[in-house]
Amino acid sequence: MPEISRRGQLMPNSPIRKLVPLAEKAIRKGIKVHRLNIGQPDILTSPNALKAVHTYDGNIIDYGHSAGNESLRKKFSDYYKKINIPLDYEDILITIGASEAIILTLMTCLNAGDEIIVPEPFYANYFSFATATDVEVIPVTSSIENGFVLPPITEFEKKITPKTKAIIICNPNNPTGHLYSRKELEQLRDLVNKHDLFFLCDEVYRELCYDGGIFTSAMQIEGIEKNLILIDSVSKRYSATGLRVGVLASRNRELLQTTLKFCQARLCPPNIGQVAAEAALDSPPEYLDYVFNEFLERRNFIVHALNDIEGVYCPLPKGAFYVMVKLPVDDAEKFSMWMLEEFEYNKQTVMLAPGSGFYYNTDLGKQEVRIAYVLKLKDLKNAIECLQKGLESYPGRILPKASADHVKIKIA
Amino acid sequence: MPEISRRGQLMPNSPIRKLVPLAEKAIRKGIKVHRLNIGQPDILTSPNALKAVHTYDGNIIDYGHSAGNESLRKKFSDYYKKINIPLDYEDILITIGASEAIILTLMTCLNAGDEIIVPEPFYANYFSFATATDVEVIPVTSSIENGFVLPPITEFEKKITPKTKAIIICNPNNPTGHLYSRKELEQLRDLVNKHDLFFLCDEVYRELCYDGGIFTSAMQIEGIEKNLILIDSVSKRYSATGLRVGVLASRNRELLQTTLKFCQARLCPPNIGQVAAEAALDSPPEYLDYVFNEFLERRNFIVHALNDIEGVYCPLPKGAFYVMVKLPVDDAEKFSMWMLEEFEYNKQTVMLAPGSGFYYNTDLGKQEVRIAYVLKLKDLKNAIECLQKGLESYPGRILPKASADHVKIKIA
Repeated sequence: MPEISRRGQLMPNSPIRKLVPLAEKAIRKGIKVHRLNIGQPDILTSPNALKAVHTYDGNIIDYGHSAGNESLRKKFSDYYKKINIPLDYEDILITIGASEAIILTLMTCLNAGDEIIVPEPFYANYFSFATATDVEVIPVTSSIENGFVLPPITEFEKKITPKTKAIIICNPNNPTGHLYSRKELEQLRDLVNKHDLFFLCDEVYRELCYDGGIFTSAMQIEGIEKNLILIDSVSKRYSATGLRVGVLASRNRELLQTTLKFCQARLCPPNIGQVAAEAALDSPPEYLDYVFNEFLERRNFIVHALNDIEGVYCPLPKGAFYVMVKLPVDDAEKFSMWMLEEFEYNKQTVMLAPGSGFYYNTDLGKQEVRIAYVLKLKDLKNAIECLQKGLESYPGRILPKASADHVKIKIA
Repeated sequence: MPEISRRGQLMPNSPIRKLVPLAEKAIRKGIKVHRLNIGQPDILTSPNALKAVHTYDGNIIDYGHSAGNESLRKKFSDYYKKINIPLDYEDILITIGASEAIILTLMTCLNAGDEIIVPEPFYANYFSFATATDVEVIPVTSSIENGFVLPPITEFEKKITPKTKAIIICNPNNPTGHLYSRKELEQLRDLVNKHDLFFLCDEVYRELCYDGGIFTSAMQIEGIEKNLILIDSVSKRYSATGLRVGVLASRNRELLQTTLKFCQARLCPPNIGQVAAEAALDSPPEYLDYVFNEFLERRNFIVHALNDIEGVYCPLPKGAFYVMVKLPVDDAEKFSMWMLEEFEYNKQTVMLAPGSGFYYNTDLGKQEVRIAYVLKLKDLKNAIECLQKGLESYPGRILPKASADHVKIKIA
């Protein structure tokens, strides 16, 4: 047979999804698998979105505009203006999830061989999108030991080469929960301007900032109008991940015109998904409050419960709905597989996302996992109990010598 | 601002969609635009699909499996087996339309700089997908003068270089209507085997073969199990283009495993689209008969009506729902723009897809347009009348000297 492509060979298995076959096997054995591996909340989808599906009134489910439905683009513009992000509907392209928005941006902005700087640990699929488009990921490493605080901007600057074309951040961050301050964004702005880079900001979790943390959108930072691409999605905000409706927004019209050519080739985003997303954007404030309070409660529970387990450490995330967790194990991926293949507790087990997939150098996250606190409290409690029991009987358990040194987590 | 990527600059505007802004302007002036530019039938979507949308019973529109819903993959497998294409559900990945299936295949099989051979005129977006993935398109040219008969396979072989990695065909063909014979497929099989190439077959129009023409799927040709990738979609068969649900199928499991890694990165195909597609596959045979008869009647009308216009020539397509048409004009793209910007007849005009976008060398299709016969007969009649009047008053009209030489089209 002919040889698979180089990018196909380099492409990593998603750390979030590669254990799915093992989970399916466990389920077939009658074991309940608590899925903490993936950002799929068990929160009901916005009723507005569901109603729009049930009352869909077309009799031809037809192609739409390649840029997305104009009415949806206008609805997004209204939403952004309300939260003080001034974007006209013509600044907005509707994409097939934030995933497509990132791929389209990489194709529009970077050549094969160009470099994009990413603070790590990063959303694992950033690496996949870069591999798919022959772009090199250059990491700036933060570590769990100091709570994933953002490295100084000078560390970013050290990584710049003639091949550097862009920086991508996720704010609030998946997987670390880091919430970028205005000052950090302004420092990145200065760097982006100094070296004339594209700046990709993935803000799909912007409504989930805890402990009084104030969210600043990169769109609210002046002086990078031509450099900035905002990535967004309705998936998390309205618990509607399966709609596959995202946003690529920029005030750089030349860039959007180029991206639109890629959009034309794939014809249009999903028709019914767009109709549902448009309705979701009209969700009552009570719905978003409910979503926020759910995640806040879950975060407060899980951070305490995890740090209470011997040898486990996780910093306090300030936003989004993930924690990066250090486990007292030889290899977190082996442990995650063992939990699905060998372990059960009261006919239950836990599915985790091995941390190594969130680092460029996969040795760095060898003892870490990403946990998505997307389950209701009752299930989270069972899942954490399961995890604790699993850690106690895992053959590769390694208790750290100085686990008491970790700072106790305080929640305001 | 930083520079747009090379692939962004090379990316063509879709010939099918680039005139959309002009059409929108005409509509704002109160003109009815007959859209013959795009394969969007006015046929009602399969009622099964619509019902599935209205009765969607989830309360969380969640992520699905990256390979697509297992139930949908099994339904496709049943469908294929019924039409004598033996594919297990594990040979099938669900994609975001046939568009994504092609992009994923190019990413999986070809490196940047590799070459793919395509008989031209070709579906314009093949070129776009290749540009997006840094793949070189190598055309094998057929011409309207001899009815777009497939060039001899020796012409394909002449184009093979050390960089050649794949051949792609569309059967029945968009835009020419060519229906590949078993013999032609076997010749391609031999070529593919001789040079160890991947073979991509886009069969989204397989149910639309006219005049007793027998459709042979590349999946029914033996000896290329490891080389063949089948591309499919529910869009055309069930008039549900907006669902964005397609298929990438292969018996080469290593290839599918690699493609699945790309699928994992973009998470999953649209949730509700998949539910609707699964229902569509259960459409009663009467629905498909109705669709077939509609297109047959439309084809018979339009081929006659077009050839009756002075200076116009179109060969008889044997499948799909397009005709490539030669017009007596200086430049078919200029004419298509003029029809939208300057012309109206009884407050109506026609939107066409300029033919040059369907050729690698855009000079080749300069007098041609692609017409999709996707409108009901009454509208098609108005559209053709409009086109005739437009041709009569277009300032760049050029009547061919020997138009009478064209063979008269006979419909069996």
